[in-house]
Amino acid sequence: MADAVTPREEDYSQWYLDVVRNAKLAENSPARGCMIIRPNGMALWENMREALDGMFKATGHENLYFPIFIPERFMAREAKHVEGFAKECAIVTHSRLTTNEDGDLIPDPESKLGENYIVRPTSETIIWDTYSKWIQSYRDLPLLYNQWANVVRWEMRPRLFLRTAEFLWQEGHTAHATKEEAIEEAERMLDVYATFAEEYMAMPVIRGRKTESERFPGAVDTYCIEAMMQDGKALQAGTSHFLGQNFAKAFDCTFTNEDNEVEHVWATSWGVSTRLVGGLVMTHSDDQGLVLPPKLARDQVVIVPIYFNDDQRATVLKEAERIKQELADAGIRVKLDADDNQKPGWKFAEYELQGIPVRLAIGPRDVKNENVEIARRDTKEKNIVPQEGIADRVKTMLDDIQTSLYETALARQEEMTTTVDDYDTFKEVLEEKGGFIRAHWDGTAETEQRIQDETKATIRCIPLDQEEEEGVDMVTGKPSKGRVLFAKAY
Amino acid sequence: MADAVTPREEDYSQWYLDVVRNAKLAENSPARGCMIIRPNGMALWENMREALDGMFKATGHENLYFPIFIPERFMAREAKHVEGFAKECAIVTHSRLTTNEDGDLIPDPESKLGENYIVRPTSETIIWDTYSKWIQSYRDLPLLYNQWANVVRWEMRPRLFLRTAEFLWQEGHTAHATKEEAIEEAERMLDVYATFAEEYMAMPVIRGRKTESERFPGAVDTYCIEAMMQDGKALQAGTSHFLGQNFAKAFDCTFTNEDNEVEHVWATSWGVSTRLVGGLVMTHSDDQGLVLPPKLARDQVVIVPIYFNDDQRATVLKEAERIKQELADAGIRVKLDADDNQKPGWKFAEYELQGIPVRLAIGPRDVKNENVEIARRDTKEKNIVPQEGIADRVKTMLDDIQTSLYETALARQEEMTTTVDDYDTFKEVLEEKGGFIRAHWDGTAETEQRIQDETKATIRCIPLDQEEEEGVDMVTGKPSKGRVLFAKAY
Ligand SMILES: [Zn+2]
Ligand SMILES: [Zn+2]
Repeated sequence: MADAVTPREEDYSQWYLDVVRNAKLAENSPARGCMIIRPNGMALWENMREALDGMFKATGHENLYFPIFIPERFMAREAKHVEGFAKECAIVTHSRLTTNEDGDLIPDPESKLGENYIVRPTSETIIWDTYSKWIQSYRDLPLLYNQWANVVRWEMRPRLFLRTAEFLWQEGHTAHATKEEAIEEAERMLDVYATFAEEYMAMPVIRGRKTESERFPGAVDTYCIEAMMQDGKALQAGTSHFLGQNFAKAFDCTFTNEDNEVEHVWATSWGVSTRLVGGLVMTHSDDQGLVLPPKLARDQVVIVPIYFNDDQRATVLKEAERIKQELADAGIRVKLDADDNQKPGWKFAEYELQGIPVRLAIGPRDVKNENVEIARRDTKEKNIVPQEGIADRVKTMLDDIQTSLYETALARQEEMTTTVDDYDTFKEVLEEKGGFIRAHWDGTAETEQRIQDETKATIRCIPLDQEEEEGVDMVTGKPSKGRVLFAKAY
Repeated sequence: MADAVTPREEDYSQWYLDVVRNAKLAENSPARGCMIIRPNGMALWENMREALDGMFKATGHENLYFPIFIPERFMAREAKHVEGFAKECAIVTHSRLTTNEDGDLIPDPESKLGENYIVRPTSETIIWDTYSKWIQSYRDLPLLYNQWANVVRWEMRPRLFLRTAEFLWQEGHTAHATKEEAIEEAERMLDVYATFAEEYMAMPVIRGRKTESERFPGAVDTYCIEAMMQDGKALQAGTSHFLGQNFAKAFDCTFTNEDNEVEHVWATSWGVSTRLVGGLVMTHSDDQGLVLPPKLARDQVVIVPIYFNDDQRATVLKEAERIKQELADAGIRVKLDADDNQKPGWKFAEYELQGIPVRLAIGPRDVKNENVEIARRDTKEKNIVPQEGIADRVKTMLDDIQTSLYETALARQEEMTTTVDDYDTFKEVLEEKGGFIRAHWDGTAETEQRIQDETKATIRCIPLDQEEEEGVDMVTGKPSKGRVLFAKAY
């Protein structure tokens, strides 16, 4: 069995790593900063992917695939973009291995590339180079494309799922004839992300806009969703960028409009990544391990049969199989663990660790009484209930878990949001309570930077539902029109 | 509209590229040898992926994900493996970009990596390093894992889908306690590939074993499926390797067996790639463009409404919508093209080019007579049929197309297989007819190499159903126990 999970109270960071490792979601790899995603983690990401992909298709997008290698010269075309990514690029410089005098493998000096390639940190550059060939007329617009891919951003302080040198993600890249349409698209996709986070991950999010200094390199405007983790730190869970005409200008992507005039194309890009898996873990899990929302759990129910001899085994397994079939027929994802090598007690702990939402246990007495024990992972409630109507009961319980996880997380997020008017209180709340702090800000990058330097808190976003409110910046005393959301963040 | 497709008779290579480009499957990218997979091509690959993934799961496999970067030293561990891949590796040597005196972007010399990384050409090395940590006892076995990923093998003569520097694939990597179990697994997965090729792609394949010189670098035995293209050249469509204990020994992966003895683990790996898309194109398509087997077509049916004024438009579209709904309710993937910007004739040609298996056309007269025109892509047959019972009729036609594509391809494969006993005839058949040639071989690498040097034909495989037959090698006159399959290949 896996090692014990460090309690959250004791060490939240260690607790997170313990849950990720013991629930067999992922582990570190020999390639520095890259992770190995294990089957339990991969199943979670694949379920997220499937749900998101359905939502992208429902909003008119198609998938395609661009190369992993970006020619070095492309990176230079958009000034802010290269500035943003230059320090975290994996650069391919050679195409053959050979051995040196000592017999060690080295890049063959004769295979040095004429032009280096960057392993994509994101694909705007290579995509806009191509879009400039695909787009001639307004009739070619919009292009609504997405790709599921791996990307690499060299990472100095890697952390499983949350910050890894390589991660899996999707990146949408759309091209539009007008500014308005592009902004609408960027907002629509932010909404898709927020809906996914709330309805599938049961993770409430704040929809907002980044400040200029936190924008994606090359974007005119970056929208984001921000979630609050159990330890009071925020997690940026998804971003959607209105890119204006920056990339169209850098790659000379123009179109002829209906009036036969040549214009530059308007762009968006948007992405979420395997980081969401980390956010899911930190939103719901507890000291016993992972807690999964039913909509994303590979197995929503596990059935553990209990018996002490071969006669009982036969009777109990027969009932267990029947119940499994009944649940499967009702569209529930169910697993029966009939492995004789492990004791029921071990299995209970293991599935608790893995976060399976509902556990059914059935023993000889349950068979006789036509009962089954039902336990829910989130509240740890246990009850003996009739086998009759078990599928309906489980369905209701799964729905209830999904809702309840969301409501618990929402209540925490609200409890962890504090409105503050002066800088001393700000620092105090930040240190003692953490969470989101709603405070006035004078709108300057200088003040933003000063607060970050002094407290490590950053402006997570300017909430989309920000109310107009006259106020003064808590640091400079300069006027402000509304409150922004500060927090320490992952 | 797209340019015309070069007829196969005129230039088969150009025909292939024309179909791939005009059906918007893929195109070349600015990253040398890498391709851009367009939405039509991606939908095809995603459908293949989904079908294969279901078959992998049904045979007990789970997905996981290993890093794209392989530490240089890992490559050196298995001697044949590094020998096989050293000449086609993308090597990452730096982690930051900077600008030189001229303002050009260059790898920052200070960011030179302590150890270089290889962009995975395949993942045996990094996976077996990890398996050695995951496996201790026979109770941990078997491990039945697969990953969907991109890989890079530098490619001097790239060709869309068939040979690209980066390609998408899946790689299964399994670990077993016994040799027999590992061989059984390698054979099972070959069978999964063959079943997929024949049942989904409608592409008949020969199941066989590679000769020693054609084996995967590091394998004890390589199984393969080989398909025959329309131009008489063979395509290796999938491989499954019995790796023996080679990688377990290289990465010191041992387990304690039931008798408490320490043994090295037995391994398999198996993969298919986006190359299958190229095989699909070359198996069924014709001078009008792509021909898709219904099971893999994103859209199985397209409905083209025909009208000449607004009144007709309303009536015709209403009927078309109703038929679309009827087909969708019957589980048929159907698209209605109601775009007013294009004429029906243009649409007919476009969907023919894109290979949609069945086309329905409906005009004012059809509405009045309660008819619809049905056309099948493979035979180009057209008929006016009653709207009544259209879903059943379409279903039957789709099944029929799927079967008929397979049978046509099988008949061609058989017709293109020649049994030959002497080297002169061999050369003659190879030049004039092409296809598979069944001939005796003395079992030596020298003879194999000589034949390849002199004719460009290689031994595609030793068929699994090879009959025992006394004979003599057509080149050396040395004895042979059975015929092997020669061909020129992609
Ligand atoms: Zn321009
Ligand atoms: Zn060893």
